[in-house]
Amino acid sequence: MKLSKLVGERLKDAPAGASSKSHSYLIRAGYIKQVSNGIYTLLPPAQRINNKLQQIIREEMDTLDGQECLFPVVMPRELWELSGRYSSIAEELLRFKDRTGHDMVLGMTHEEAAVHACLGSLKSYEQLPFMIYQIQTKYRDEARPRAGLIRVKEFTMKDAYSFHSSQADLEAYYKKVYDAYFRIYHRMGMKKVIAVHSDTGMMGGKVADEFQLLTDIGEDTIIVCPHCDTASNVDVATSIPEENEHIFGVKTEVFTGEAKTIEEVCSNLNKTPSQVAKAVCYAVVGDSSRIIIAFLRGDKEVNESKLKLLVGSDIAIKDLSETGLVKGNIGCVNLNIEGAEIFYDKSLEGLESFVTGANKEGYHFIGVSMTRDVKPSKYVDISKVKEGEACPVCGQKLLVKRGIEVGNIFQLGTRYTSTMGLTVTMPDGTTINPIMGCYGIGVGRCLASIAEENSDEKGLCWPMGIAPWHIYLCPLRLDNEEVKEQAERLYNRLIAENFEVLYDDRNTSAGIKLTDSELMGIPVRIVISPKTIENNNIEITIRSTGEKIFATEDNLSKKLDEIIIY
Amino acid sequence: MKLSKLVGERLKDAPAGASSKSHSYLIRAGYIKQVSNGIYTLLPPAQRINNKLQQIIREEMDTLDGQECLFPVVMPRELWELSGRYSSIAEELLRFKDRTGHDMVLGMTHEEAAVHACLGSLKSYEQLPFMIYQIQTKYRDEARPRAGLIRVKEFTMKDAYSFHSSQADLEAYYKKVYDAYFRIYHRMGMKKVIAVHSDTGMMGGKVADEFQLLTDIGEDTIIVCPHCDTASNVDVATSIPEENEHIFGVKTEVFTGEAKTIEEVCSNLNKTPSQVAKAVCYAVVGDSSRIIIAFLRGDKEVNESKLKLLVGSDIAIKDLSETGLVKGNIGCVNLNIEGAEIFYDKSLEGLESFVTGANKEGYHFIGVSMTRDVKPSKYVDISKVKEGEACPVCGQKLLVKRGIEVGNIFQLGTRYTSTMGLTVTMPDGTTINPIMGCYGIGVGRCLASIAEENSDEKGLCWPMGIAPWHIYLCPLRLDNEEVKEQAERLYNRLIAENFEVLYDDRNTSAGIKLTDSELMGIPVRIVISPKTIENNNIEITIRSTGEKIFATEDNLSKKLDEIIIY
Repeated sequence: MKLSKLVGERLKDAPAGASSKSHSYLIRAGYIKQVSNGIYTLLPPAQRINNKLQQIIREEMDTLDGQECLFPVVMPRELWELSGRYSSIAEELLRFKDRTGHDMVLGMTHEEAAVHACLGSLKSYEQLPFMIYQIQTKYRDEARPRAGLIRVKEFTMKDAYSFHSSQADLEAYYKKVYDAYFRIYHRMGMKKVIAVHSDTGMMGGKVADEFQLLTDIGEDTIIVCPHCDTASNVDVATSIPEENEHIFGVKTEVFTGEAKTIEEVCSNLNKTPSQVAKAVCYAVVGDSSRIIIAFLRGDKEVNESKLKLLVGSDIAIKDLSETGLVKGNIGCVNLNIEGAEIFYDKSLEGLESFVTGANKEGYHFIGVSMTRDVKPSKYVDISKVKEGEACPVCGQKLLVKRGIEVGNIFQLGTRYTSTMGLTVTMPDGTTINPIMGCYGIGVGRCLASIAEENSDEKGLCWPMGIAPWHIYLCPLRLDNEEVKEQAERLYNRLIAENFEVLYDDRNTSAGIKLTDSELMGIPVRIVISPKTIENNNIEITIRSTGEKIFATEDNLSKKLDEIIIY
Repeated sequence: MKLSKLVGERLKDAPAGASSKSHSYLIRAGYIKQVSNGIYTLLPPAQRINNKLQQIIREEMDTLDGQECLFPVVMPRELWELSGRYSSIAEELLRFKDRTGHDMVLGMTHEEAAVHACLGSLKSYEQLPFMIYQIQTKYRDEARPRAGLIRVKEFTMKDAYSFHSSQADLEAYYKKVYDAYFRIYHRMGMKKVIAVHSDTGMMGGKVADEFQLLTDIGEDTIIVCPHCDTASNVDVATSIPEENEHIFGVKTEVFTGEAKTIEEVCSNLNKTPSQVAKAVCYAVVGDSSRIIIAFLRGDKEVNESKLKLLVGSDIAIKDLSETGLVKGNIGCVNLNIEGAEIFYDKSLEGLESFVTGANKEGYHFIGVSMTRDVKPSKYVDISKVKEGEACPVCGQKLLVKRGIEVGNIFQLGTRYTSTMGLTVTMPDGTTINPIMGCYGIGVGRCLASIAEENSDEKGLCWPMGIAPWHIYLCPLRLDNEEVKEQAERLYNRLIAENFEVLYDDRNTSAGIKLTDSELMGIPVRIVISPKTIENNNIEITIRSTGEKIFATEDNLSKKLDEIIIY
């Protein structure tokens, strides 16, 4: 490819609002161009990477006996009603009417389509297990696109669906995909990917893992144990509760006046947040008569993902003044709100002599005892794990990290096969709903994540296995006849030898050429100039290390073969 | 691939409403599954073909120095307003609002996106020419999907866009793409593809060619000259007008009563349709005050595509009774409708002594003369060419054929670059809008067209170059240990030797296996059975010819290498 003809431009400055290296460099180096908020065109260099990433994924899926399909982007409402997701997913699912007035959706995931593909033809357990997958455009009506290709509305995704006759078979296959995902990231050149336990979210099912690339610009919070390598998304992370001190007290109502927040109450009563039981109030989304009150220790935060799972519905913070509750004075003693569902976090277990609201304006109780004064029927885990808490597996101190989710896998169970009526006959003549797994990778997000991990202050630095081109052929002083002649000769020869070459054939300054080669991140740069011709050599520079290697025209291909390995 | 695990089923009967062989067989053989009207899932065998077709297209585009991109499926209204197409395309362009209320469209073509990709970075004529392309899902809100994958709403398409500094350069490149398209169809195994001149439609521009696979089930009408090979879509086809006889007559008003249609008037007056000038009335879509009246010889039909081009807008048949015109008695003498735009077809040129309406209830004129009584300022070509008319190039008789459009290419001119403000600086310092070409191929429609052309009464019959698998390994009597052992051995060996094998590992009857192998259309079938084992041979059958070849285990791979050539 000749750079003079390559569509896209190299820019000096980062685009306004660029919030990550990958966002900035992918735009500055001419890889992507924004069309609309969260919607991008992949320019030729990015599409070359995209094709290579897809090929890696395809090969690994085929190794798992995956069968590639192509499901539709646009699907009818009826298909999504079968699973119940037409109504259960909020605005992220884009709905529209076609010209006949028929309700349609834009696919953001394809469980329904995958089950539909099997309806009719899947009949016997003997056909199981199998896995079908696709690599297809998806659209998610994302509220807050950000960071270039990291969080977008439209993206290319590989989504795979496996079908099994037993949970044990699913688990064995799930483990194979889990391992294949690490091979995929390894081949893509991502080094810091870890698997973390995760929420099953809109997919349903019980077990799910995410693959997270650890990076400070990641938008996900991950709780990791450096000791035993347990790792979870904060949404589902747990820790061993600290033991509360057993200092018995006398329950006494005290006037606290305007003190409402944890800080104000603690300051007023000379207590620490861990000596307070605070309340956080919610209502169920779509059914505001369902009131949820969560109590937890004052130094903890509610983990809404966990609470949602317990409630079984989406929830939102709600001011409950209308019910007679006094904000800032809500407490777990003598609380009487008809129909309210009350949850006590495990951080409260065994807490004695603590402070809580007196459920009347300007007053709190002190000296409260959980076992004597509250006696909840059970404690549940609804708090967010914080750095330094104890690992639930080994008890060592947990760390908080940031990550980009570059893949996720789910044990779905029979949610889709049962609602959509997919059955197989078992050896004993009974019928069952096959048990499903599903496995996703966002290709564009992988591209951005690789860029994020493989870049420096000069620009991108693509791993060899997925680089758009391997070689940046960079003749300096193309106005020099000898340079030009050698450049053209080498370009034609390297192309003929099946090297992937980007040829900087522009009549521009050495500074611009060298800067662009680094910004674009092509792994190997070949410089030829009047000086190299005089010295009868060719200068090879490795982008990632800066190492320089000298070759002659005769041994150039051999040297390149030694360098371009993946 | 083991057939027992392959997703999809083989059906005995054609689906209800199947209107073509490809539609019927692709469903019956488990290649596609309908999700909604005009929306299909490609099951694994079809997706294997899809990938091979895409690879052929990609290679041919890259040979033309094409740069692969990926444009968005979902685009903002603003982009389509720049070109004027947000309003000029009717309901086929699917419009919707996203969650923020922003107007968006689903891409049915990507001229706007292609120009957008170049804005900013394209500056100098030195960067020209170049071509960018993508292979991407498209959605067209098709009013009448039909014939399986032949006419659908959602499809995979390769669309390419070239940019040039002169019309001559565009024409030279256009010719290269034209030739590449024939290579593509050849490699795909389509034999009866011809290029025909076509309408530029919603794309604009002046020159366009379609590639048509000639087949009786095609929905396009093509006018071809078997003598000189001129071929055109009927929308734009022309012919040499027949000379009208110069029999002078006396213009006389006659009572024709209830005779309104051409047949009735001819019968009433004892004339032939070629002795009548008929009127067809239209209004402009979106501006019903613009009235269009087309006059043409009674034996001709209006070619609305040609008329639209002359009018410059979309038109629809309209009853003009309100204006005082009498349906069935409209004529070209003394016609006085204020503001009406009147067109005279070239078939009327030199017509004498003909019949036309008298513009009053129950009367016609006879003996009318175009030169004496009507004197139009010009004649235009607004009639549809019919079989037997004279070729405009060589004068021989034209034939009418049916075809499936499997690709189209356009010389777009500067319509998009000028409206979207894309310019380049020329050597003399002036700026111009680059001249564009665009080049489309529907991948799914190619798949269906190949199926249409390559099938017989037993089923599909894929060309070797794009077959989903090359070999159908078909052991009969898998309950026989020796057969089973040899089948497994051969399957593993052929896979290891990189043959593409579909292994019919089902414990089912020989009849079902042989029938399925023919229905699915895999080019080479290998049968092993107790009999072949006894005879110490292996039976190879060529699907397209029925030819049988016998091999041994030793020379099997060599024989297969000789057969599997493309």
